[in-house]
Amino acid sequence: MQKADGMNYAPQGIPRPVVKAGEFAFGVCHLDHGHIFGMCNGLTEAGGELRYIFDPQPERASDMQHKFPSAQILGSEAELLDKTDIQLIAAAAVPSERGPLGCRVMEHGKDYFTDKTPFTTLVQLDQARERVKRTGKKYAVYYSERLHVECAVFAGQLINDGVIGRVIQVIGLGPHRHGAPGSRPAWFYEREKYGGILCDIGSHQVEQYLYYSGATDAVVNHAAVGNYRFPEYPEFEDYGEASLTGNNDTTQFYRVDWHTPDGLGTWGDGRTIILGTQGYIEMRKYIDVARDTAGNHLYLVNEKGEQHLELTGKVGYPYFGELILDSLNRTEKAMTQEHTFKAAELCLLCQEAAKRLG
Amino acid sequence: MQKADGMNYAPQGIPRPVVKAGEFAFGVCHLDHGHIFGMCNGLTEAGGELRYIFDPQPERASDMQHKFPSAQILGSEAELLDKTDIQLIAAAAVPSERGPLGCRVMEHGKDYFTDKTPFTTLVQLDQARERVKRTGKKYAVYYSERLHVECAVFAGQLINDGVIGRVIQVIGLGPHRHGAPGSRPAWFYEREKYGGILCDIGSHQVEQYLYYSGATDAVVNHAAVGNYRFPEYPEFEDYGEASLTGNNDTTQFYRVDWHTPDGLGTWGDGRTIILGTQGYIEMRKYIDVARDTAGNHLYLVNEKGEQHLELTGKVGYPYFGELILDSLNRTEKAMTQEHTFKAAELCLLCQEAAKRLG
Repeated sequence: MQKADGMNYAPQGIPRPVVKAGEFAFGVCHLDHGHIFGMCNGLTEAGGELRYIFDPQPERASDMQHKFPSAQILGSEAELLDKTDIQLIAAAAVPSERGPLGCRVMEHGKDYFTDKTPFTTLVQLDQARERVKRTGKKYAVYYSERLHVECAVFAGQLINDGVIGRVIQVIGLGPHRHGAPGSRPAWFYEREKYGGILCDIGSHQVEQYLYYSGATDAVVNHAAVGNYRFPEYPEFEDYGEASLTGNNDTTQFYRVDWHTPDGLGTWGDGRTIILGTQGYIEMRKYIDVARDTAGNHLYLVNEKGEQHLELTGKVGYPYFGELILDSLNRTEKAMTQEHTFKAAELCLLCQEAAKRLG
Repeated sequence: MQKADGMNYAPQGIPRPVVKAGEFAFGVCHLDHGHIFGMCNGLTEAGGELRYIFDPQPERASDMQHKFPSAQILGSEAELLDKTDIQLIAAAAVPSERGPLGCRVMEHGKDYFTDKTPFTTLVQLDQARERVKRTGKKYAVYYSERLHVECAVFAGQLINDGVIGRVIQVIGLGPHRHGAPGSRPAWFYEREKYGGILCDIGSHQVEQYLYYSGATDAVVNHAAVGNYRFPEYPEFEDYGEASLTGNNDTTQFYRVDWHTPDGLGTWGDGRTIILGTQGYIEMRKYIDVARDTAGNHLYLVNEKGEQHLELTGKVGYPYFGELILDSLNRTEKAMTQEHTFKAAELCLLCQEAAKRLG
């Protein structure tokens, strides 16, 4: 069920606590996107304690408490923000609310961990940059398509080890299943709220590109969006693509869509193909079509031969433990703030540059 | 051996003659690229008779005669051009000579069938367009990565049958093996002679895009080239990419390179991924990495499920028989002249637009 439904796909990993019980507590609020469960799984498996829950819709708060019974439900966002025994607040608000919420969280002396996409406008990004600078707090983002996918984590290690030489180019394919009519909330189709497809699910792709290529900035060469199958939602975009060139002369092409066919055994045939001067890597993240309904397939070809690695359960998700330690130690091992913001900025610039197709 | 070496990869198909013996005779000349063997295989399997051979290098002519013993070696190009008992001349000259040679062939009242890429400059293309108009002869191009690949032929049939709905986007990956140092002729590295990577091996990609998408024209959104591994050949390009938008609002991204790692079991991991509104197709043309060293794998996903089709020996290569009949009947069933030229034009425009990376 979870596997067929990307919206509520919450990976579970091997618990590898980096702290003792009670050393790192956090709260959650605004549970609008199911990604919040994956975020909480990641943090609690790394030793974090979910202590407080707030959501304007009581049933969503109860649902979260059902999964984390020791957490306490609070009556308002203000009550949560005022708590002094938590280090971080995680949230998966409606995309257009994520930036402003993060600013409120940081103003209240806590780190913020939001579902992607982190912003829907460049103004929100500027405000968050300013608030990070002023408060010294963190604005972390759950770029789950790398951070919570074992083959994607392992690919980063392989590239760092030089197994494909210097990275030349990254292709990212991020198809998603729309799901049954009526299964998505109204905000999902409202441009001002979800930010456009390149901003929304495109944010994963740009983040992966920067990470794998080592580029610290990029220009948008081309971007386009379209709506082919959902004319009843005129503000919705079910297709997007973009081409970027990084400041280290690497390039990226990515394509995102809501066209996963009903016949696919999972919510999306996510792929990443990374070409290097000495070899290449292909990830089949969530399925190996007509071969294996399990995910985390990594194909590596270099001078030594062809390898197929099945990585489920073999790599784990180091991001969450690193984020906890970064929060406690004020370091940047999980992800730098600049990388986090640059990925957000570039997906917003892709969206701004997008021509309309279809 | 052939499998490891794209330059001399000459597919053999099921002989399906479309004419009786002697009804369609042709000559060959300028055997600079090994593709000429695939071209001759295709024509003779379809019932054509290779009657005359000319090459300035006698050993290349003998080599061809060894494979087609009934063919006669001639002493000059002029002698071949003056023959009146052949319908067509096939050639795989140095790329910059292909256009001028084609004009000479058509002036002598014969159809021309050249290896890709058909031109290295837009001026050559204009000359050929004019000559086709004036002589009524054909300028046909061996876009082998579709025409001589069974899964690629079959993909066209599936798309025509509507199994993936309306085509939205095409991704083409055309990696090639460079091979051992010294294995390539001097012209391979001279920009004026090979035309640039987007013009050369990129021509396959643009042709496939137009064919699968149904676009009859396109604009180049972005293009880039680089030379990462061959600094000893400063005019060589070992990497190229381009993004196009068609006049039917479909899009293409393609990437070509000379970076096939030594460890890959074939000359290149050629892929084509076609996204439609009702499903998608992926071709793994020459290998299924770490799964199967044979080629012609087609993966189809639509509302009915996931399918993996192994198509070697099951589809054949209808292009060659259609070309023979087009030549005899003055029809355009194999490929229209306009499609042939438009693919050539667009790859030249990609090359012109290309920024330099690396």
